[in-house]
Amino acid sequence: MSESTQRWRLTIAYDGRTFDGWQSQPSNNTVQDHVERALAKITKVSEIRIHGSGRTDAGVHAEGQVAHFDAPVGLRLGAENWPMALNTQLPPQIRVMNSEPVGDDFHARFSATGKTYTYRLAVGNILSPMSYGRIWMTHSRLDSTILRKAAEQLEGRHDFQCFAANGGSRCLPPKSTIRTIARIECHEMPDNHWELTFSGDGFLYKMVRMLVGTMVGLAAGRISESTFQQLVLAQPGLKTPACAPADGLYLVTVRYA
Amino acid sequence: MSESTQRWRLTIAYDGRTFDGWQSQPSNNTVQDHVERALAKITKVSEIRIHGSGRTDAGVHAEGQVAHFDAPVGLRLGAENWPMALNTQLPPQIRVMNSEPVGDDFHARFSATGKTYTYRLAVGNILSPMSYGRIWMTHSRLDSTILRKAAEQLEGRHDFQCFAANGGSRCLPPKSTIRTIARIECHEMPDNHWELTFSGDGFLYKMVRMLVGTMVGLAAGRISESTFQQLVLAQPGLKTPACAPADGLYLVTVRYA
Repeated sequence: MSESTQRWRLTIAYDGRTFDGWQSQPSNNTVQDHVERALAKITKVSEIRIHGSGRTDAGVHAEGQVAHFDAPVGLRLGAENWPMALNTQLPPQIRVMNSEPVGDDFHARFSATGKTYTYRLAVGNILSPMSYGRIWMTHSRLDSTILRKAAEQLEGRHDFQCFAANGGSRCLPPKSTIRTIARIECHEMPDNHWELTFSGDGFLYKMVRMLVGTMVGLAAGRISESTFQQLVLAQPGLKTPACAPADGLYLVTVRYA
Repeated sequence: MSESTQRWRLTIAYDGRTFDGWQSQPSNNTVQDHVERALAKITKVSEIRIHGSGRTDAGVHAEGQVAHFDAPVGLRLGAENWPMALNTQLPPQIRVMNSEPVGDDFHARFSATGKTYTYRLAVGNILSPMSYGRIWMTHSRLDSTILRKAAEQLEGRHDFQCFAANGGSRCLPPKSTIRTIARIECHEMPDNHWELTFSGDGFLYKMVRMLVGTMVGLAAGRISESTFQQLVLAQPGLKTPACAPADGLYLVTVRYA
């Protein structure tokens, strides 16, 4: 971030099954680790950090994760060449889909104004091999009216403290657990498949998975209407008992002003 | 196949990337190996062989492979229970989707009257991580008129000797290389994706992949119209120069009278 660097914004897709999440870990097998290693190989500069829009957990997928980094100028790589160059160094389960030059005031995390996640699930008994690790198969039949009503009630500005996991010792607790979910779309697809799409200004740790787990639990009759109301009303000390597995979760887009 | 056995027909789906093809190998990592091991665990009978409708190569997927086996009667497993019981013992990349009791005259391979394969491909530069190993990405733009015309010409009863690979030392050469392709459907999908579906009475070794490679080569301008005509006319000694990768190939259904 100086006169001798150019900031770049990358759009990155990945199959989360293969990696230990987004954020750098001692395992060196996170998406961030792989992209930083690829950048080091290409640029011969070992210390370029990439900054993501936020963490995704192990097993969570991304169609449009966004990250930025500062490249020394004069590297002789055009805008179009970052994806091609990085993809030759990356495992095929990670693809840089797009790159564009941005100003030094752009920050993948702090400039983000919103995100969209899609959660894919199916009701049934036998999960197709091609969907393994990619959708959540749940056995209980869902009441679609209850599911849609729950989605409607969760939309808007709420305190989502009952739908937030503890991020562990590496994370400070969030300053506020109030978030705005602009929209939750519930698409019923053929063969008892569902796509639940959440658009909001930001999401707490594991919030989408906890919302999905709770909505599905309610629509399957495992969570009572009164428990659901207490969770939505952010009853102090209460946490949802349900968290959907990582398999079905996709970070679709990150929005910027 | 006696009074003390019952023959069962299984429908099996698998993600071909994980396995060394269908047919039993010393690696013990074929689909047949896994299903036979699962059967042995459930039945406590170690010598039950399963017979598939035909081989699929490493990397080739199946939505509806068919196989049969003879189970000792009195095992106390109902028709519905084979999929559930076998799936608990199988890796999640193999699922038994269905089972049904059949007569001793049913043979998964010799009773088959036809098969349908789908080949999935995309034209583009960056293969989505979720499609890795599941579709063939080709860079060259395809002329859809040429592709469809080639498909039409390949339909019908022909000598497909130019579209057959040598099966290796384990295989006898086919008695005849004449086959009938009832239908080749070319579906153009969003985002430059294509699905090519082949229905026929039977296919030679690697025939679908060689047909796809040749059709795409022609539609991309890499194979000349005159070479294509020679291949269709089964010019002796000529083999197609193109074979599409296993990644995009799916055995969809096996038909029985």
